[in-house]
Amino acid sequence: MMGAVLLSEFATEIVVPVCAVIGIAFSLVQWLLVSRVKLNPERHASGNSNKNGYSDYLIEEEEGLNDPSVVTKCADIQSAISEGATSFLFTEYQYVGIFMVAFAILIFLFLGSVEGFSSKSQPCTYDKEKTCKPALATAIFSTISFLLGAITSVLSGFLGMKIATYANARTTLEARKGVGKAFIVAFRSGAVMGFLLAANGLLVLFVAINLFKLYYGDDWEGLFEAITGYGLGGSSMALFGRVGGGIYTKAADVGADLVGKVERNIPEDDPRNPAVIADNVGDNVGDIAGMGSDLFGSYAESSCAALVVASISSFGINHEFTAMLYPLLISSVGILVCLITTLFATDFFEIKAVKEIEPALKKQLIISTVLMTVGIAIVTWVGVPSSFTIYNFGDQKVVKNCYAPNFLRLGKVRTFNSSNSDRQLFLCVGVGLWAGLIIGFVTEYYTSNAYSPVQDVADSCRTGAATNVIFGLALGYKSVIIPIFAIAISIFVSFSFAAMYGIAVAALGMLSTIATGLAIDAYGPISDNAGGIAEMAGMSHHIRERTDALDAAGNTTAAIGKGFAIGSAALVSLALFGAFVSRAAISTVDVLTPKVFIGLIVGAMLPYWFSAMTMKSVGSAALKMVEEVRRQFNMIPGLMEGRAKPDYATCVKISTDASIKEMIPPGALVMLTPLIVGTFFGVETLAGVLAGALVSGVQIAISASNTGGAWDNAKKYIEAGASEHARTLGPKGSDPHKAAVIGDTVGDPLKDTSGPSLNILIKLMAVESLVFAPFFATHGGLLFKIF
Amino acid sequence: MMGAVLLSEFATEIVVPVCAVIGIAFSLVQWLLVSRVKLNPERHASGNSNKNGYSDYLIEEEEGLNDPSVVTKCADIQSAISEGATSFLFTEYQYVGIFMVAFAILIFLFLGSVEGFSSKSQPCTYDKEKTCKPALATAIFSTISFLLGAITSVLSGFLGMKIATYANARTTLEARKGVGKAFIVAFRSGAVMGFLLAANGLLVLFVAINLFKLYYGDDWEGLFEAITGYGLGGSSMALFGRVGGGIYTKAADVGADLVGKVERNIPEDDPRNPAVIADNVGDNVGDIAGMGSDLFGSYAESSCAALVVASISSFGINHEFTAMLYPLLISSVGILVCLITTLFATDFFEIKAVKEIEPALKKQLIISTVLMTVGIAIVTWVGVPSSFTIYNFGDQKVVKNCYAPNFLRLGKVRTFNSSNSDRQLFLCVGVGLWAGLIIGFVTEYYTSNAYSPVQDVADSCRTGAATNVIFGLALGYKSVIIPIFAIAISIFVSFSFAAMYGIAVAALGMLSTIATGLAIDAYGPISDNAGGIAEMAGMSHHIRERTDALDAAGNTTAAIGKGFAIGSAALVSLALFGAFVSRAAISTVDVLTPKVFIGLIVGAMLPYWFSAMTMKSVGSAALKMVEEVRRQFNMIPGLMEGRAKPDYATCVKISTDASIKEMIPPGALVMLTPLIVGTFFGVETLAGVLAGALVSGVQIAISASNTGGAWDNAKKYIEAGASEHARTLGPKGSDPHKAAVIGDTVGDPLKDTSGPSLNILIKLMAVESLVFAPFFATHGGLLFKIF
Repeated sequence: MMGAVLLSEFATEIVVPVCAVIGIAFSLVQWLLVSRVKLNPERHASGNSNKNGYSDYLIEEEEGLNDPSVVTKCADIQSAISEGATSFLFTEYQYVGIFMVAFAILIFLFLGSVEGFSSKSQPCTYDKEKTCKPALATAIFSTISFLLGAITSVLSGFLGMKIATYANARTTLEARKGVGKAFIVAFRSGAVMGFLLAANGLLVLFVAINLFKLYYGDDWEGLFEAITGYGLGGSSMALFGRVGGGIYTKAADVGADLVGKVERNIPEDDPRNPAVIADNVGDNVGDIAGMGSDLFGSYAESSCAALVVASISSFGINHEFTAMLYPLLISSVGILVCLITTLFATDFFEIKAVKEIEPALKKQLIISTVLMTVGIAIVTWVGVPSSFTIYNFGDQKVVKNCYAPNFLRLGKVRTFNSSNSDRQLFLCVGVGLWAGLIIGFVTEYYTSNAYSPVQDVADSCRTGAATNVIFGLALGYKSVIIPIFAIAISIFVSFSFAAMYGIAVAALGMLSTIATGLAIDAYGPISDNAGGIAEMAGMSHHIRERTDALDAAGNTTAAIGKGFAIGSAALVSLALFGAFVSRAAISTVDVLTPKVFIGLIVGAMLPYWFSAMTMKSVGSAALKMVEEVRRQFNMIPGLMEGRAKPDYATCVKISTDASIKEMIPPGALVMLTPLIVGTFFGVETLAGVLAGALVSGVQIAISASNTGGAWDNAKKYIEAGASEHARTLGPKGSDPHKAAVIGDTVGDPLKDTSGPSLNILIKLMAVESLVFAPFFATHGGLLFKIF
Repeated sequence: MMGAVLLSEFATEIVVPVCAVIGIAFSLVQWLLVSRVKLNPERHASGNSNKNGYSDYLIEEEEGLNDPSVVTKCADIQSAISEGATSFLFTEYQYVGIFMVAFAILIFLFLGSVEGFSSKSQPCTYDKEKTCKPALATAIFSTISFLLGAITSVLSGFLGMKIATYANARTTLEARKGVGKAFIVAFRSGAVMGFLLAANGLLVLFVAINLFKLYYGDDWEGLFEAITGYGLGGSSMALFGRVGGGIYTKAADVGADLVGKVERNIPEDDPRNPAVIADNVGDNVGDIAGMGSDLFGSYAESSCAALVVASISSFGINHEFTAMLYPLLISSVGILVCLITTLFATDFFEIKAVKEIEPALKKQLIISTVLMTVGIAIVTWVGVPSSFTIYNFGDQKVVKNCYAPNFLRLGKVRTFNSSNSDRQLFLCVGVGLWAGLIIGFVTEYYTSNAYSPVQDVADSCRTGAATNVIFGLALGYKSVIIPIFAIAISIFVSFSFAAMYGIAVAALGMLSTIATGLAIDAYGPISDNAGGIAEMAGMSHHIRERTDALDAAGNTTAAIGKGFAIGSAALVSLALFGAFVSRAAISTVDVLTPKVFIGLIVGAMLPYWFSAMTMKSVGSAALKMVEEVRRQFNMIPGLMEGRAKPDYATCVKISTDASIKEMIPPGALVMLTPLIVGTFFGVETLAGVLAGALVSGVQIAISASNTGGAWDNAKKYIEAGASEHARTLGPKGSDPHKAAVIGDTVGDPLKDTSGPSLNILIKLMAVESLVFAPFFATHGGLLFKIF
């Protein structure tokens, strides 16, 4: 029944780590290039003699290029932001570290208790003839891989923040030389983060699999069960990163805006605003570190979901190592594809004008998707046998000749015969990849002020903030339609071809260009920070205009990135859901049973509960910030006149303390729900909860992100006044503009805290259920057992 | 296996219509009492000699009681409102009438085509031994019952509007005599509507069943299948009533507020505002006519769902007429219970002070629930046999001895033995009844300004409209938690005891006190109108304070009513979903199949799509209204000074035209989705869509209603300034108050259009699927058949 693969096991063992190392090396080269921009005035000047593309170094001397005081100021501000961010992350990691240890112990206890901590070998679950390692081993190795995932996730976030705070002031300085130069610095820095994260994630996973294999030997079922801990570790750290970071950044942002812009009428990022450093720190801890952890989590989870399903399918049963590592091979090729794609932005073409920035970023997405399509075809051709079976909820029944027109003959296990198999798996990965692109562009349509939806929202500001809010909410609701159809089609196609494995690899397909995606995503906050530094350093209006243009493009791509993150989260969590159901040995999740239905409706409620918590948290933290900023304006003599310096540190501390405190209840909700439901109500109700949270959460996440993005850009549309229509609404300070600012402020917690955190909610609950599945299947449903 | 029932078939045939007639008679008596308040100045004075409780008639003569000009003014305003409402409803019904005829033809064609329009008898679906009437007969009778339901629904809405516009000015006039008098008029008028609707709905259904029986004879399966059309008719009219009325009322309200209150700084309901009549008309067509149709729809649908499941269970198979009509018996007793309950408000106690109003209304809910619990016990005792089986998705397998501790042994059909049976069915109905009360009180907690949630929202207005919006949205999200748990528990208990039948009767339990519920609900808009008339007629501040107090209580009870409507809609649509699945002969709806899952995720998206449409519609219609109101203020000389009269009719026309035009797209979305999905994707995907729309829609509906209610009351809290805290935020016109007004305006479309319409979306899609189930089961899933 099985066919040989073109890529030998030995070759696979070489290809994967080599690609990972290439990714890390490329990342370091990018970092080196960024570091050539000097923050030290003396050495900066000496950089002129450098020949690597900096030949037009002095073209804008009139901008005060060689004024050492400006450079020093930038360096000072950068170090203040960097210190604030580092200090916050260290504080956060202290608390998260305690959680990590406690949860690791919990994993060990729960999974160890499945067989009463027995160290005896046991018959395998899916092949009773064979002997597998004891449940205690799975408990130990799950715990280890959980810790590995958690540490890798934390490192990803931390390194991302470090490079971003390293790059922001450099981007500002380069902006003096031209918008193209600044763009390259910002984009390269994003790429450092993207490649480091993608390559590290892959390498750690690969090494872990190989090390675990030394113990597990032929027991691949146990091996890949233990590996699922890696996804859980990655995602649980991402939860705290996103929620904590999200509360931090929005408390600071809302607080700074409400007093600075609205009450005191001073510009964004004005150095007189005491919350301005906290605001800039927020970009780095929320939008960079949090997002890094989030996407790393998605990546780790979709790999784990694919691996665990594959391990109980023919790949695992027949020990076909190359096919087994197909998910890792996709990610490996993804790194190479993204590497080439990056060169299109930084080396093959040069940005000469402001209006070229956004197309250049969008081209990145298209190029990477097109190249990756070829990449997937190659990997699938060399790495997948011509025939195989996939486990599909239940016994190992084989269905032959399962080809497109018959794909609805739902057998329990399907065989992919001869020439079709690789093409079918190629379609699964490809549909995910392209669905991601479609979601990205729909998101752009609804959030960019180049199109009518955002312009309509801006127009509604004429009648005040109320209509702006109504139109913005309606826009967000509407923007859900096409992405959901794209996700539904991906699910249908990939599931029909390869059951839950198909969905897992579709998610991986969407995430395969993660390095490029992250580079683009990180570009946004870096530009934003660069603009802030220009303002605070008192640089000319000219420079600020350039950084604003960089930032505006970043705003749109950030929205695209969010759409993309949500789409992949939906697929990932469905794949994890499928893996959980397989591992919990349920064969149907029937909505018509009360146990499942109550799970479904309660699950659909959880995103609301969670959002209520995070939004209230942002609100409370922002109120504290507002009071402090007001206090400083009132109490520090000469602050408004610029004669005295505000106390930035207190504002940083308020954001830090509030976010640490406020991230605990939503974090607990997400982490405890699967444990409580699984333990007391059992796997069927838990399956209902996961499905409900997924189908409800994804809608809120998309609509919240897009509503927020639209409000933000509607405000920018009025401020920029680029068209006749826009000018009738402006200028800054007009009534429509004031209404737009209110919308933008409401949107902040929606798009940067609640929306992105919901991604993690749906993924994390699913991966947690997957890891604890053996416990729930054995000891779960206590409540029903008692009665 | 079957036990006899205490109530004979003959007695049932008497009890049901007698209760219905008592309800109608009681309604007429209430109307008569209201009509004693004369709008004619001369005859009004002669009313003094009347002895029925009007002895303290002249106690407040100083308020200008006998000033004939005030009375005439009130009468004029009332007739303007009544004319506007009547004209809108007639216009609406013209369009809806066309739809009704078209859809009736569609039903006939779809259902007739199931067996190719054959007029031959056929073997029954659930008992192949017997012969049933042809599918063509079911097509004809379904069409008839659809038309019956539609006409009854339209009548319910229309009569409700008529009595409300009859009562509003009378309430204003009575307010001159004291708050207690005014309360009684408003409440009695609500009761007229409540009893008329409940009794009419019951009577028409009862008569239809008996007439259809003349043809169907022993074929109860076909008979009750045909009856499901009644629910569809009721609900499809409710859709247009709620959506059209909702757009009308909010376009007028938002338009009037944005120009009048915000731009021109004139009070609410000021006669100089051109949109003021349209605004008052809106209350009657949206909150009265729309809500009447909505609750009638719920009532008809839950009865139909229970009947259709019962017809294929032992009640139907063994032709136990009394047990079969158990749902109607519950409603009959409900009418009697509500009658007694009403007397507590109008006769047994008297309201003497403003602060007694809200407790009196809340007591209504508690009294009716307690009395109804006894009522259910009696009906269940006399009407249900001691042992019976219920159909539960599949073959007629019998499970014996199914008692509480074993209720999770899910057999396909359960037998309820001896003494337990009635108790178990009693619990099903009772859990629904009490869950409704809990949902009502939770809603009150989150929307009344007597408690901290709304006070926190009011407090957040200190920092502006943005924080107000953020806190309000978070409050709405949070308010979902307990109602969802209450619904989940009801579902679990009732399903465990009596499968889908249990859920249908639980829904009926929640709706059994519908007459009281409607009386309380209608009380709100009537009071609101009364206040408006007082303002427009230029009555003293003293009178306006009284009507405001009446209205404030009405606001809270309106929120309670909405919570209650949503809760019952959730249960009703689940029951309909179950009936649909039974009729479509599916035995599982497995989330793990791609067909179902894509349905689930797309279904969960529909409420967003629908809300986007309705909110955008309100926004666009309001913009048109704003332009017209501005135009009149600018163009009509002396309008602001009160020397010229505004052109009310044009505003009424704008609201009418906009709502008629804008109700079509959302209406089409809801009506076409089941047809398209069922025809092209088949019953399994449709089942997924229904489940997804239900679990997602109910959350949005609850949160939208409560967010809107909270903003409304936060604004009122600041305006009233009843506490130290409230006074620090006020007075009217302060910055926090302005922020509160923005929240209130945003909340209008959420709480009065989008939220309540979603109720209907989830119910209507389910009942439509149920009616068309035979067609989808036979000819559905075209797309999959082609490929």
